[in-house]
Amino acid sequence: MFIQKLEQRQQQSNSLLCVGLDPHIEKIKPLGLTLSAWLKKIVDATADYACAFKPQIAHFAALAAEQELAEIIYYIQHQYRDIPIILDAKRGDIGSTAERYADEAFHRYGADAVTVNPYLGGDTLTPYSRFTDKGVVVLCKTSNPGSGELQDLVLEDGQSLYLKVAQLAANSWNSHNNILLVVGATYPEQLRAIRQIVGPMPLLVPGIGAQGGDLAAILAAGLRADGLGLIISASRSLLYAGNGPDFAQQSRRACQALVSEINILRQSILPTT
Amino acid sequence: MFIQKLEQRQQQSNSLLCVGLDPHIEKIKPLGLTLSAWLKKIVDATADYACAFKPQIAHFAALAAEQELAEIIYYIQHQYRDIPIILDAKRGDIGSTAERYADEAFHRYGADAVTVNPYLGGDTLTPYSRFTDKGVVVLCKTSNPGSGELQDLVLEDGQSLYLKVAQLAANSWNSHNNILLVVGATYPEQLRAIRQIVGPMPLLVPGIGAQGGDLAAILAAGLRADGLGLIISASRSLLYAGNGPDFAQQSRRACQALVSEINILRQSILPTT
Repeated sequence: MFIQKLEQRQQQSNSLLCVGLDPHIEKIKPLGLTLSAWLKKIVDATADYACAFKPQIAHFAALAAEQELAEIIYYIQHQYRDIPIILDAKRGDIGSTAERYADEAFHRYGADAVTVNPYLGGDTLTPYSRFTDKGVVVLCKTSNPGSGELQDLVLEDGQSLYLKVAQLAANSWNSHNNILLVVGATYPEQLRAIRQIVGPMPLLVPGIGAQGGDLAAILAAGLRADGLGLIISASRSLLYAGNGPDFAQQSRRACQALVSEINILRQSILPTT
Repeated sequence: MFIQKLEQRQQQSNSLLCVGLDPHIEKIKPLGLTLSAWLKKIVDATADYACAFKPQIAHFAALAAEQELAEIIYYIQHQYRDIPIILDAKRGDIGSTAERYADEAFHRYGADAVTVNPYLGGDTLTPYSRFTDKGVVVLCKTSNPGSGELQDLVLEDGQSLYLKVAQLAANSWNSHNNILLVVGATYPEQLRAIRQIVGPMPLLVPGIGAQGGDLAAILAAGLRADGLGLIISASRSLLYAGNGPDFAQQSRRACQALVSEINILRQSILPTT
């Protein structure tokens, strides 16, 4: 079960940090490494601090690097079998096509979870959620500046669209108890409102680091009483912390520092955990 | 310019039919053909009747068939250069990641247009629409039974969400005049309302054929006065019209019959064109 695997890893590693794998080839080439070699060095350097790895498929697809994506997932599964893999793909399609995207995520790549888009409705999420051992991470409130253009629209009952998505995700879409939500770190007040609706559901929170999300506000708004419930995701600020021969060590240090910062904040917010 | 290329092809071929390329390997294998050979036979057999080809990327991704996707696009571009290619990918992500998805569609595959999801907001569409010669086909009202769960939600001003998307697409998102919308053939009344909002914008209409969309109602609701404005897309009902050695001929006949049906309806709706 994905959520169980995730939370076991979070407790075991004492980390809420998800390491996003977004390869930027213009930063990798000067290091004189192949993409696969770079990915393995990053994974090896950061695994101690990772509660999950999150490869972003667009960054592989733009490079025609599906093989490298499959290889690094296989590597993590065999070297770090306790660390779940969230394939960040934000898929959204209907019927038999959604089934093919689920095949891509779960059969081809063997990911533990996949990110999906809710705009097409709950019937388009069941091709993923029927894999009851996998996680389905639904976009709710995204971290970009313009996310409110649709997501903040107010419905006739006074509720915002993103809260409606949270409500559906926590109830009618969640019959297999394997739905999670994406909530951008740049919107802590919205995260607080979502937490009130979804109860203990884990929330994947990108937007820390390069995007400038407020870590303290996010943790205060979203931590559960057990100190879990959040997956804090960062990519560029970790992957490209250094640009010299010691890049992997710099990434490790950046992860260590961020986990430490998160844990100090967790202690101050929940002193009894 | 994508829309210009599309409409020239529609006039030249006297066809509004978009041939969707959704390879189902369990139907192709018994024919004793490779995926690439099957795709070329289908393209060759149906090109006379196609105003566009629309490969659906999930069906390739599930098969690890990116190479075959690239090859068939290259083949169409060189053998049928007047026929635009819409990459059906329904991408949706933010910032630099959306840029990578645009790279995938326009640089890696060289598609003329790509389908995208609006849930993340207009700022996430500009990485595609800044390619001013390309088309950006935004999901508005999708053909699946559950599409209304979010898309039909009524906003505080009384407007449905999908009409809000149509309004944004026709105005603030369309600064390069290269936005189109997806409207499912299963919702002709909604298509009529969208047409009123978006003026002459071309609409991509899947859901004819296997999904049971009402062709006459769609044409009556959405045709422009010049007899264009709609891209009627079908996939399975054309691709798998036959399952024997004459499958390509059967696909050709299915296209011919559907184009003929569309054109008879066009004549009855717009007798002066």
